[in-house]
Amino acid sequence: MPELRRDPVVGRWVVFSPERQIRPERYVCEELPPTKPEDNPFLEGHEAYTPPEIYAIRPNGSAPNGPGWQLRVIPNRYPALRVEGNLDKEAVGFYDRMNGVGAHEVIVETPHPQLELEQQTLAGVARVLEAWRARMIDLSRDVRLHYALVFKNHGARAGATMPHPHSQLIAMPVTPIVVKEKLAAARAYYFEKDRNIFEDMLKAERKSGERVVFENDGFTAFCPFASRFPFETCLMPRKQSPDFQTATDGDLLLLAEVIQRVLATYASVLDQPDYNLILQTAPFRRSRHPDAWSTIDVDYRWHIEILPRLTGVAGFEFGTGVYINPTLPEEAANVLREGMTHG
Amino acid sequence: MPELRRDPVVGRWVVFSPERQIRPERYVCEELPPTKPEDNPFLEGHEAYTPPEIYAIRPNGSAPNGPGWQLRVIPNRYPALRVEGNLDKEAVGFYDRMNGVGAHEVIVETPHPQLELEQQTLAGVARVLEAWRARMIDLSRDVRLHYALVFKNHGARAGATMPHPHSQLIAMPVTPIVVKEKLAAARAYYFEKDRNIFEDMLKAERKSGERVVFENDGFTAFCPFASRFPFETCLMPRKQSPDFQTATDGDLLLLAEVIQRVLATYASVLDQPDYNLILQTAPFRRSRHPDAWSTIDVDYRWHIEILPRLTGVAGFEFGTGVYINPTLPEEAANVLREGMTHG
Repeated sequence: MPELRRDPVVGRWVVFSPERQIRPERYVCEELPPTKPEDNPFLEGHEAYTPPEIYAIRPNGSAPNGPGWQLRVIPNRYPALRVEGNLDKEAVGFYDRMNGVGAHEVIVETPHPQLELEQQTLAGVARVLEAWRARMIDLSRDVRLHYALVFKNHGARAGATMPHPHSQLIAMPVTPIVVKEKLAAARAYYFEKDRNIFEDMLKAERKSGERVVFENDGFTAFCPFASRFPFETCLMPRKQSPDFQTATDGDLLLLAEVIQRVLATYASVLDQPDYNLILQTAPFRRSRHPDAWSTIDVDYRWHIEILPRLTGVAGFEFGTGVYINPTLPEEAANVLREGMTHG
Repeated sequence: MPELRRDPVVGRWVVFSPERQIRPERYVCEELPPTKPEDNPFLEGHEAYTPPEIYAIRPNGSAPNGPGWQLRVIPNRYPALRVEGNLDKEAVGFYDRMNGVGAHEVIVETPHPQLELEQQTLAGVARVLEAWRARMIDLSRDVRLHYALVFKNHGARAGATMPHPHSQLIAMPVTPIVVKEKLAAARAYYFEKDRNIFEDMLKAERKSGERVVFENDGFTAFCPFASRFPFETCLMPRKQSPDFQTATDGDLLLLAEVIQRVLATYASVLDQPDYNLILQTAPFRRSRHPDAWSTIDVDYRWHIEILPRLTGVAGFEFGTGVYINPTLPEEAANVLREGMTHG
């Protein structure tokens, strides 16, 4: 059973998942193995090599766990957290732990092993976003879970171990510290100013324009003022909502366009960089939850961060939380705007 | 001039150092280049290829910036922060920035390009620690600086770009967020319990012993209960002090033994892993500083963290601050104890 442990000083939870040690990388550096087609469990026709699917888009009504799909969601074969069991929260002497209850799912974005997300049709990208939304809505009903992160690791330097295009979802029984900090800051800002910090940021960015990369009727993509990584982008909806799950089909189509344009521009300008994409949305909200939610509908806004991994994370970043970035976001935005591929 | 910018939501400062872009890695992934001996500026006899030295140990009284040294400290040729200039703190519309005033130094630990830290004599390791202390004491006198991080990136996966054994020091004009969080937690714990959180942790670890790797009369090395990385260790002094600068020569000799034993055991058990070593000490304390220091002498304790980089940092960690660790610290400590090389 995986286990969650809390660092007693900084309050950071760590997921211990000894089952992931059965992977061949035990105790050695993770490198992306060249997957032979016959070893790729995400291919159409290879459905028997994955756990049974949780969700799929099968336009011709084909049977589950066989061919005929456009997108499949399956449990991770080496899950960081498991769906079964009780939380059994407890103190262990000086420390705190609980069982690693949660979910770890893989969204196989396409049957085609080399069709990257940005190379899909707009409808294809929107299908991926719809799958994220459907899984978030479903998992939000599990009262044991507090938060779900959707993310995409693209390339070995970004932590991917399978080259077949996929994203992931991990749902967990605690609200993670990064989310808590953003929520607390957004709440404090709203309390002080009676304004939404993300709306104010969006206004500042759209007014100056120097860090804006692309926008359409629903979303603005910009390089954040204090970007941690060169060419980092933030994709911000202009409509207020704390929860990604509330996005409509129309919203997702607009978001799909922004994701497609930004990723295609990265691929062309930065020569197919490895990247992490993370969805930052609000926790699942429940009564008797230890966090306070009184103003979250107006103070917090969901958004997406895309982090190209051209630079490493090393001792300085771990020791301080400060990042060193050689590229100013104004320059990065300029390079991306000029290299923007047209849809 | 480098620039510091503050993320308006999470309060994280980012250092923008466009000068580091003149490095050949501009916009491409950093990989460790095989350094030809003639290209290694850290070799004895190559002193002219580095900026003038700031500190050196020259047992035979040789002249600065020539051969005859055991250890040299030099400014980083591509500094993240620069010593010259005023802070010019200012708001830029919605955002906050200041000039990148600070220091970025390289501690060349030995003239021998392949003599890793743990392969040095005990006196050689202690020399490195004495250099860290001397530079911290010197930089603490600069009223513009709030904090200095000493760290060591070993190997390409840990962010090193030079294989010659070296550590680094970055001094900065803000107290970084990781340090602020630790200080705040330690202060709150002391306020509530009238006890030092690090002392309580040390007591818990020494009582159970299951995560202790090695200890001598001055220090205990253990795998933290909520280790982020497999085989992570924390080196904790048993004597209370917030500041590494207060360590005596005797303390540093005891610390040198623990560092040597832990790193030698990593090298043997984990096959020369890449790692980050970070020194977590208190900020430089000054009057009129915005942080509160009333109980820091009793509530905070300096310590060292060593983070083997066998696993990557990917989307999940960036999106949540939660880490996934496949190896329980009890197992890691057991492996390290059994593989401990004897000095």
